[in-house]
Amino acid sequence: MDYNQFFDSALDRLHAERRYRVFADLERTAGRFPHAVWHSPKGKRDVVIWCSNDYLGMGQHPKVVGAMVETATRVGTGAGGTRNIAGTHHPLVQLEAELADLHGKEAALLFTSGYVSNQTGIPTIAKLIPNCLILSDELNHNSMIEGIRQSGCERVVFRHNDVAHLEELLKAADPNRPKLIVCESLYSMDGDVAPLAKICDLAEKYGAMTYVDEVHAVGMYGSRGGGIAERDGVMHRIDVLEGTLAKAFGCLGGYIAANGQIIDAVRSYAPGFIFTTALPPAICSAATAAIKHLKASNWERERHQDRAARVKAILNAAGLPVMSSDTHIVPLFVGDPEKCKQASDLLLEEHGIYIQPINYPTVGKGSERLRITPSPYHDDGLIDQLAEALLQVWDRLGLPLRAKSLAAE
Amino acid sequence: MDYNQFFDSALDRLHAERRYRVFADLERTAGRFPHAVWHSPKGKRDVVIWCSNDYLGMGQHPKVVGAMVETATRVGTGAGGTRNIAGTHHPLVQLEAELADLHGKEAALLFTSGYVSNQTGIPTIAKLIPNCLILSDELNHNSMIEGIRQSGCERVVFRHNDVAHLEELLKAADPNRPKLIVCESLYSMDGDVAPLAKICDLAEKYGAMTYVDEVHAVGMYGSRGGGIAERDGVMHRIDVLEGTLAKAFGCLGGYIAANGQIIDAVRSYAPGFIFTTALPPAICSAATAAIKHLKASNWERERHQDRAARVKAILNAAGLPVMSSDTHIVPLFVGDPEKCKQASDLLLEEHGIYIQPINYPTVGKGSERLRITPSPYHDDGLIDQLAEALLQVWDRLGLPLRAKSLAAE
Repeated sequence: MDYNQFFDSALDRLHAERRYRVFADLERTAGRFPHAVWHSPKGKRDVVIWCSNDYLGMGQHPKVVGAMVETATRVGTGAGGTRNIAGTHHPLVQLEAELADLHGKEAALLFTSGYVSNQTGIPTIAKLIPNCLILSDELNHNSMIEGIRQSGCERVVFRHNDVAHLEELLKAADPNRPKLIVCESLYSMDGDVAPLAKICDLAEKYGAMTYVDEVHAVGMYGSRGGGIAERDGVMHRIDVLEGTLAKAFGCLGGYIAANGQIIDAVRSYAPGFIFTTALPPAICSAATAAIKHLKASNWERERHQDRAARVKAILNAAGLPVMSSDTHIVPLFVGDPEKCKQASDLLLEEHGIYIQPINYPTVGKGSERLRITPSPYHDDGLIDQLAEALLQVWDRLGLPLRAKSLAAE
Repeated sequence: MDYNQFFDSALDRLHAERRYRVFADLERTAGRFPHAVWHSPKGKRDVVIWCSNDYLGMGQHPKVVGAMVETATRVGTGAGGTRNIAGTHHPLVQLEAELADLHGKEAALLFTSGYVSNQTGIPTIAKLIPNCLILSDELNHNSMIEGIRQSGCERVVFRHNDVAHLEELLKAADPNRPKLIVCESLYSMDGDVAPLAKICDLAEKYGAMTYVDEVHAVGMYGSRGGGIAERDGVMHRIDVLEGTLAKAFGCLGGYIAANGQIIDAVRSYAPGFIFTTALPPAICSAATAAIKHLKASNWERERHQDRAARVKAILNAAGLPVMSSDTHIVPLFVGDPEKCKQASDLLLEEHGIYIQPINYPTVGKGSERLRITPSPYHDDGLIDQLAEALLQVWDRLGLPLRAKSLAAE
């Protein structure tokens, strides 16, 4: 039997739908971020990265790099096993304590990634609650949807950030039935924020548990980087907080923080935790250094917000279609998958600016966009160059600008 | 509603079944492996690790540590995004090329872990094949079982390593139906090896695709460390080889290697690949260094086999119940969960020897065991100490020895 036909036709479908993706081979230089080298088909090119999720540039912070180097030199590279089989090492134990403290919870548990945290954490929690009803925001991340699906529990979906709809669903359910509300705090494609206090109000009113994904917020919001829940003063009202070490903390890995029983139960029952090798000591030490630094330093958070505000202001003033966003995420509306890809290609090839196109299924059809993530290290000169390059690309592709008078409002 | 009751009772069940696990907080020192420091409840203690999956001690190899330190210093700690969003970096591209070469395949694809490789790789492949029938070895790892389950495909299970039974099942299936045989090459709890050549014969005879997990074999078997499939000369006959960077290569991460279409299709369709941050550059460089070294050097493989043979010989000569094993894994039969846990505790507390108990559900009830994994760095003195400590523990717990005359056979 010719099995390749199946894979060929799967790839053909992507090409036909203009969804086939090509990854850019990049090489960063510590100390020069957001500058990087692009290993292009035509050779090496200098580029500026404008779409990294290393939001605060902590992946190149001397304390973070130093911690990784020190630990790798002292203890070696890998953990050597699952947590149960020789893989529980001291830097990992220290990191879990640091994370519990960050979120004001009794305990924390590390996973290989944020994706795995949700995928194995959510079903493990939900399955331990008899007859659990899951209430899920319609724009939840794929990892949460997969986790919910794997739980086998009944699920109802509430309209994005719509607490009235959430209340309707809670009211309609059996009052004695256990319920788990699952949502994100900051949605990364639109940059909008969940009304966490109102969700907590409803959870308390209807006796539901809460699980909140803060992967795009930890490190960046709250006075110690505890996320939107810390900023909004509701961290103690949320049962399970999920976060990542791979974005603002500049490393790799995901985690949940909660009370001791929940963490111990997930530790004991989650297959995606039990049967996998622990994170390397050097990664854990680097993450701990990043968290500790961001608990004490507000410079990165303030500069980050300042840069995001400046990018929005400059692009708006130029008449570029900046989409509304409450946070550091700056989405730029394109509304067409072909042109979105072309804009990205032109920016990279002609302007040395790297911004990935965001097309369906990551966002809805007709809302294709460029997603810009300014960091503390994008200076005024880079922002001006970005605006100029975007204007040229917009002109070249015949994309509409907004009327300048409108844009200035 | 009191949700803690659910988690408390879940934990109570584990305690009642004697399955509640306590992780030992260990700290290795590069250059001193298998020696490590145990952060015990009573303070720091020197211990010898006898159950690590860093089988060849590559996690402390100067080339591997050096590569991690060099890359972290040069480019920073994290990848900064998913593969599509700024996360494809040069050391990762180089590592995938290295892995494709290792297995003689057109391409390779990296995942966060070996667990994720199976969990998202298997269902992605199977779902792209219409009406695929999966044939699965009954002792496949949890990650493969989860992957098969998530594929939603029909699955039939063949008795462990039983090619006659596999053929029966293949024969019983519709000849025109696409089929995927999923197995491991080396099963880590018994140390036995799959008859890969015979499985390939059957796959060819009945037109099935093959997916083989080599996580406990890559680096350790084959003249370049390509695994059991390389050793047995069947690497080119297997469609998809899956491996890990977290065991013999001493780092973190998993991968599949296959032809270009399969890899490109999984790259394009696997949610557990698409929506997760790429592995850090320093991890990739370290893994590449380990693979390159083990392609050229046989010292580690030969010394590893020599040490495993010596441990088996010495423990057998002492009358200890070494279970039959074809490989570097040395299982020691206990047959009782309580005594298995007690033996492990006594070894650690009284002899400074760390070997985890392997109880149900990792192995069947009544076949509880200690699983010993000698490395190239366990010298004769350590082996003698291990035998002496085991004899004392066996005596203390009233566990049976074999008749010495039998053991010497």
